[in-house]
Amino acid sequence: MFDPIEKLKEFIRHPSVSTDSKFRDGMLGAQKFVADLLGSIGFQVEVVRTEKHPLIFAQRGGDKSWPHVVIYGHYDVQPADPLNLWKTEAFEPTIIGNRIYGRGAADNKGPLMTNIAAIAQLLEEQPNLPLRITFLIEGEEEMGSPSFPKFLEQYADRLREADFVYLSDTALPNENQVVITAGLRGLTLFDLVVTGAKGDMHSGLHGGAFRNPIQALAEIMATLHLPDGRVNVPGFYDAVLPVHDWERAELKKLGVDEKAYAEFLGVDIFYTPPGFSPAEAIRFQPTLEFNGIGGGYQGEGTKTVIPSKAFVKVSCRLVPNQEPDKIKRLVIETIKARAPKGVKLEFIDQHKGEAYVVVPPDRSNTPKDQSPVLARAFRATDKAVTEIWGRPPLYLREGGSVPIIAEIKRATGLDSVMLGLFLPEDNLHAPNESFNLDVMKKGIATARRIFAEIAKG
Amino acid sequence: MFDPIEKLKEFIRHPSVSTDSKFRDGMLGAQKFVADLLGSIGFQVEVVRTEKHPLIFAQRGGDKSWPHVVIYGHYDVQPADPLNLWKTEAFEPTIIGNRIYGRGAADNKGPLMTNIAAIAQLLEEQPNLPLRITFLIEGEEEMGSPSFPKFLEQYADRLREADFVYLSDTALPNENQVVITAGLRGLTLFDLVVTGAKGDMHSGLHGGAFRNPIQALAEIMATLHLPDGRVNVPGFYDAVLPVHDWERAELKKLGVDEKAYAEFLGVDIFYTPPGFSPAEAIRFQPTLEFNGIGGGYQGEGTKTVIPSKAFVKVSCRLVPNQEPDKIKRLVIETIKARAPKGVKLEFIDQHKGEAYVVVPPDRSNTPKDQSPVLARAFRATDKAVTEIWGRPPLYLREGGSVPIIAEIKRATGLDSVMLGLFLPEDNLHAPNESFNLDVMKKGIATARRIFAEIAKG
Repeated sequence: MFDPIEKLKEFIRHPSVSTDSKFRDGMLGAQKFVADLLGSIGFQVEVVRTEKHPLIFAQRGGDKSWPHVVIYGHYDVQPADPLNLWKTEAFEPTIIGNRIYGRGAADNKGPLMTNIAAIAQLLEEQPNLPLRITFLIEGEEEMGSPSFPKFLEQYADRLREADFVYLSDTALPNENQVVITAGLRGLTLFDLVVTGAKGDMHSGLHGGAFRNPIQALAEIMATLHLPDGRVNVPGFYDAVLPVHDWERAELKKLGVDEKAYAEFLGVDIFYTPPGFSPAEAIRFQPTLEFNGIGGGYQGEGTKTVIPSKAFVKVSCRLVPNQEPDKIKRLVIETIKARAPKGVKLEFIDQHKGEAYVVVPPDRSNTPKDQSPVLARAFRATDKAVTEIWGRPPLYLREGGSVPIIAEIKRATGLDSVMLGLFLPEDNLHAPNESFNLDVMKKGIATARRIFAEIAKG
Repeated sequence: MFDPIEKLKEFIRHPSVSTDSKFRDGMLGAQKFVADLLGSIGFQVEVVRTEKHPLIFAQRGGDKSWPHVVIYGHYDVQPADPLNLWKTEAFEPTIIGNRIYGRGAADNKGPLMTNIAAIAQLLEEQPNLPLRITFLIEGEEEMGSPSFPKFLEQYADRLREADFVYLSDTALPNENQVVITAGLRGLTLFDLVVTGAKGDMHSGLHGGAFRNPIQALAEIMATLHLPDGRVNVPGFYDAVLPVHDWERAELKKLGVDEKAYAEFLGVDIFYTPPGFSPAEAIRFQPTLEFNGIGGGYQGEGTKTVIPSKAFVKVSCRLVPNQEPDKIKRLVIETIKARAPKGVKLEFIDQHKGEAYVVVPPDRSNTPKDQSPVLARAFRATDKAVTEIWGRPPLYLREGGSVPIIAEIKRATGLDSVMLGLFLPEDNLHAPNESFNLDVMKKGIATARRIFAEIAKG
């Protein structure tokens, strides 16, 4: 049996940034690493080619009467920049105390290694475990999984044989409380590029005659929110559904400490839509955020130009029942209607993903046709978590997005059991990302028990 | 006698970007080049050390009764980025047709070489020319001349012996029309940095809870202009003086073709304060411009962060009687008053410079105590230009800034005769900067005649 921490170090050393073509070698290295590891514990591994980065599809077959779980994960990571803010090398895993630092440590290499290690240990102990297992490890999650729909089309029949999907790519609120993610926000993203003059112009010789694209961009952006925190795009909230009572009650059990949350963020006041606490807003409300902006001279000192272009990267997080394409269209139409004269607008389409909800068994709104194996998986998870972590999990919607969860549901009918393993302080998508090794240890024990329990039937 | 074009090539090859410390060698090379060249034509050269980049102070003495001209120029250049937009190497001078391409070709290496060549030719022809000449070539113009005030303090007594300053660091409207710059805009610059959360945050996990600094920055920026094109900062226009009638009349003679100007800029409509044509706005009105903006993820694809910081580089062009420090204070106070809650503001001071006006002889508002040598210099210039270019020069205020002109006036009482030599299509401060070699040739002949005429007394 391999050492999960040593293997995780090896995994992190492959700089698998999917959105940046400079990291081709890191992507190939991480892909080969995952394929070899799953092969070494007895899985039949297929490397599924896509337009960009291959998927690893690895199976352990068995009797058709055995339950069948699909375990999802991704081997790609976010870009690591700004590198100057890292205290350790981004792609050289470094253990400090009970944490391992490195890009991808928590998103998703650590949690994925947790589940692979649990399966490896379980199969070593019970080589004849009556459980069919399919690992589905993609390499395009951080770029919005552009190849996933096509893969799903091709593999839908084989996936439909499974009973549910299991994954760890969501968050724990703290080291002592497991959360089963009962919903995810969707998202839709695009870049807006504003062009003024045909080239950069001297701000002395020409300043005052025509519109500066940075000014036009700021004026457009400033119209997109109301002072009360809501998004100011007509129709933006039309499809948003009311929140179920048990969801609000479950969130209350979480006992969010707002002072501690503000301290964690480093802000002195929150900024949420009216009627929503910060914890509610990030789970139950959609957003429109600016993820990056650029234009003109950004270096040391000054350069007195009026730039030709300026751009902003826009993303909307969406809640169930909001359609990504429709929201994108509304936002773009609003921008076009509000843009000042004298500039040209260009929209660059980025990725998107639908929101998702799954309801655990025995809730007021549990679907009547819920799969018995899914219900059993939820109950096994509840039991294993209660035993190992000392308290039952909470069933909460999360603010993040795993767009492929909604796509799997649509293409195959499979729901997902999402057991979060990363913590707020793990710095996902930010410098100094890390993963808690105590969480990893408990995570391995929990997953072993869940899969052993499901196998019992 | 040296070949002015070959010498200009050599000059451009020194990448003398003063605002970026990576170009130290280029700065030293350009400085040595200028010192050696002036030494070779008989000047006594002093290299005046400053906190950043030295000034070249080179003199040709003579009898105290001779007129004394100070010829100003600068050997530093703007940064060349974005380099990918250059069609030739930025620091490898390339002649295409009648133009020489390269960073600094027009600002200020070409025009400066024009004046040095004129003096060299004149002194070769008339070694005993009764004219005292001081070259004053600085290396910090593009960073706002931070060392110039201290230099002026130290050298004021020697400069006060001169009669006027002559320079070519302003624009020609076209190849056939010389403009004597009768005024320059001042400027004041600062960076605004907005901070939200203490680090970059995942837009899924935390989006909707707190204020995004890019959004806050855009909301602040969007308040700083009115839809009609005016700057929306209380008190901004209070000190602005009315424009003299002869100035408006002189500008009318320029016969600005607005359609051609719009085509040159590549815009379909202008955006000027009410009551000012584009040509008037850039000369007679102050501005508030955004020269650069940055924050969050600017790379390929997407990165769903809410960044910790965003910044904008702000510059105001000022007209005579507006005080740079006062305007900066008004803008900063306005920004502070309008900033939304939940973000921190930081202001980084950059350079500044006062606006300047000089009135040629025989105008309604010519000062009664105008120096006779200055009046003679204006008349000599008018005559030389009329003879060589076929029409008299126009006396116009310009939109650009040469802050040291106002500082020289304040410290020494000297006014400046500014004979522009670069054209709108020379792409100053932008990619593909070039200088027209026909203009250079006529410029050398003009300057020779002007200085010969002044020497006659």
